[in-house]
Amino acid sequence: MTLNPADDAFAAQLRETLPDDVLRPAEGRYLEEPRGLYHGRSGLLALPRSVEEVSRLVAAAQAARVGVVPFGGGTGLVGGQTLPEGPAPLILSLERMNAIRAVLPSENVLVAEAGAILADVQAAAASAGRLFPLSLASEGSARIGGTLATNAGGVNVLRYGNARDLCLGLEAVLPDGRIWNGLTRLRKDNTGYDLRNLLIGAEGTLGVITAAALKLWPVPARDGTAMIVVPSPRAALDLLSLARERMGEGVSAFELIHRQGLLFLTEVLPDVRQPFATPPEWCVLIEVGLARGLDPSEALQSLFAEALDAGLASDGLIAQSQAQRDAFWSVREHLPEANRRIGSVSSHDISVPLGALPEFIERGADEVGRIGRFRINCFGHVGDGNLHYNVFPMPGGDRADHAREREPIKRALHDLVDSLDGSISAEHGIGRMKVEDLERYGDAVKLDAMRAIKAALDPAGIMNPGAVLRGAAGASGS
Amino acid sequence: MTLNPADDAFAAQLRETLPDDVLRPAEGRYLEEPRGLYHGRSGLLALPRSVEEVSRLVAAAQAARVGVVPFGGGTGLVGGQTLPEGPAPLILSLERMNAIRAVLPSENVLVAEAGAILADVQAAAASAGRLFPLSLASEGSARIGGTLATNAGGVNVLRYGNARDLCLGLEAVLPDGRIWNGLTRLRKDNTGYDLRNLLIGAEGTLGVITAAALKLWPVPARDGTAMIVVPSPRAALDLLSLARERMGEGVSAFELIHRQGLLFLTEVLPDVRQPFATPPEWCVLIEVGLARGLDPSEALQSLFAEALDAGLASDGLIAQSQAQRDAFWSVREHLPEANRRIGSVSSHDISVPLGALPEFIERGADEVGRIGRFRINCFGHVGDGNLHYNVFPMPGGDRADHAREREPIKRALHDLVDSLDGSISAEHGIGRMKVEDLERYGDAVKLDAMRAIKAALDPAGIMNPGAVLRGAAGASGS
Repeated sequence: MTLNPADDAFAAQLRETLPDDVLRPAEGRYLEEPRGLYHGRSGLLALPRSVEEVSRLVAAAQAARVGVVPFGGGTGLVGGQTLPEGPAPLILSLERMNAIRAVLPSENVLVAEAGAILADVQAAAASAGRLFPLSLASEGSARIGGTLATNAGGVNVLRYGNARDLCLGLEAVLPDGRIWNGLTRLRKDNTGYDLRNLLIGAEGTLGVITAAALKLWPVPARDGTAMIVVPSPRAALDLLSLARERMGEGVSAFELIHRQGLLFLTEVLPDVRQPFATPPEWCVLIEVGLARGLDPSEALQSLFAEALDAGLASDGLIAQSQAQRDAFWSVREHLPEANRRIGSVSSHDISVPLGALPEFIERGADEVGRIGRFRINCFGHVGDGNLHYNVFPMPGGDRADHAREREPIKRALHDLVDSLDGSISAEHGIGRMKVEDLERYGDAVKLDAMRAIKAALDPAGIMNPGAVLRGAAGASGS
Repeated sequence: MTLNPADDAFAAQLRETLPDDVLRPAEGRYLEEPRGLYHGRSGLLALPRSVEEVSRLVAAAQAARVGVVPFGGGTGLVGGQTLPEGPAPLILSLERMNAIRAVLPSENVLVAEAGAILADVQAAAASAGRLFPLSLASEGSARIGGTLATNAGGVNVLRYGNARDLCLGLEAVLPDGRIWNGLTRLRKDNTGYDLRNLLIGAEGTLGVITAAALKLWPVPARDGTAMIVVPSPRAALDLLSLARERMGEGVSAFELIHRQGLLFLTEVLPDVRQPFATPPEWCVLIEVGLARGLDPSEALQSLFAEALDAGLASDGLIAQSQAQRDAFWSVREHLPEANRRIGSVSSHDISVPLGALPEFIERGADEVGRIGRFRINCFGHVGDGNLHYNVFPMPGGDRADHAREREPIKRALHDLVDSLDGSISAEHGIGRMKVEDLERYGDAVKLDAMRAIKAALDPAGIMNPGAVLRGAAGASGS
């Protein structure tokens, strides 16, 4: 089935039932993505103000067989928001639907429209004395709809789960243009198939999320942050176990940082204050939020002492002020920017079972070493088994000189991940970048079920064509 | 499309590829359900020992167009495990697939086959120093596959979530007989549609769950239990808020109990020790599990003192020993049995947004009162907005005398739930009992999407025909 372009005739038809300023030509940021790997096919941009307008847009696209690309904050890292080829699509940005519809602290619920910026949702929760724990580097521009469509992760997954785990209900427009009102605030509702979780993580290929009921949490009474030098990734895992035994669910983030990342900061972001005089080979950033009656500094102090005794730590810093906490987090949060400035040959967002992490790190370096001489910056959410594993040229080298090694590196690392029962996309999703990888490494039975579900809910294939599953329009792959 | 019976010819065909003792006639407990509302259509019983055998059975049923009824512990309360009419089905009991395949405390993961009994999974976790928090009255006979297929809830949802939230990965046989190996232990894996959550809660209508990777938690360092008399359901909610502000996620259960339930215990289970000399109109059972360094008795003591000051409590007991804790829980856990012995006219498993709970309780009693004179036992997981709301004859009355009032009561209560944006099935599911209710109260767009998904994955309609969605064989409804 071939799609039709969002051409002038289609635009004219839409203008008959929509306010004048909803439509405009798509250009600029709507055609770009952060890594510059895809440039979007220009098309028609729609900026609806209500779910009814979204419904009308999608229904018209369905009738005209025009592809629809939902657009949130544009921060996705796998090209899910960027259609590079095929007939010109209708790009549907939710940015005007950015209201916080309700904050209900007594129910621990917040209802936001899909275009609400993640940081604004966090702030609205905080104003009501509650925590919305989804937190990631792009939270200043990522929008709630996009974080749900991609089941975003971030630094607090260890304690609070992925975006999927933070959502109670959805309002969405399905591919036929009809509105599903599933905006429930219920903690328990066993009435039929889990359409909510089907849309979450489907990256806009099964419908457009227009609003969400989100879970809030009590704000932990007191937070604490520490940077601890560990002798190895294995020791980092043992330290995590120890921390969870001592503080239970109080451990909210546990991030592994490799020396290479700290050296990159020195190289391209020298203003970021380094925690240790000499960058250690491995260190972890621990964040804890404890209940009333417990002192996080004391708890981290005693954890550190135990870790020293057990050979799981050799040095450490426990933040004594908010400024110090911010400084520790600044190190972690500037790693992606430093990576961008250095320019990676290949970057990977992988997960493996926790126990297999040290093996992956060791064998991954061997695999990369067999292909050539590179610098590896391996860091991330080790508590979730999730590593951002990025491969860079040697000092003075240029990523452009390694274009031929990119594919072999990716293949070797993904083969290794697969052999360890891991995932080739832990938190960024499939988008357009990993469609072929999903075909290669995904379970064939699951893939067939996905294709059957896609065909059942979107028979014309208009929703985000070529993302996640290879589209009829041949728009997948990179 | 009409299904064919699991007749002798079908059995003979199965016997060609399966060990002799896998098949036998279905009788006894495989045709019954706890409330005695459905009696199953006799058919062929299969007791497979492996996922490959399940695969062969389902593939054969698919080819022969024979209905398949998956059977776990048989404890479901909505007839999902009992096909009362239509062609004789293949009843597929997972009871022989009851192995705990792996316990991985360092990863906080346990892998169990679908037939493992819930209490055995809890015990296996405990032996490894971990907690598997799913806990419900029938845990001694409910099997993991069934608890996942129905997305079971129970008493610890407040802290740990529903069955869905406790599962990392599934192995399942899809309606075409193929095996989906989705038994991942990963905390983060964004590779395509969420088939796991689609099967969880689908009540066996989209496939058969054969094994699951489950999440484990650290065992809270110290538990505490209290029974507190509250002046009203509203006060109970305020007390819950206060408890969560003081103890954060430490509050693991918060159960509301009405005087009627305590009086029922006195009437039919007099050996159950009553906590208060005079049964109070409303009380709550609170369970907390706190981290090292905190004393749960002290925390509950100070919560109680604050609640007294704020007028949220008038009396209370804090358990001082394991025996007292067990006694408090025994009261809660015997309520369903007491209800059974009294014999309800109508029972309801509903949820409403937390803030609407007091209104539901008040208006629900009015609605029931308009229909006749009844005793109401309203109790349950108030922290989740989930009430078991059961209506009984007056003393000396017989449920049989109220058969004509059953439907009006149900309708009035479900209309009320619906008007409050609640759910007519909070944790028990749809099964066959609530198919019509789902059609009446469910979102039409969601229902169409469910039908499309069912048709896409199970075009012949063999999987648990008539459960959740009205089946071609007309086996739905009661």
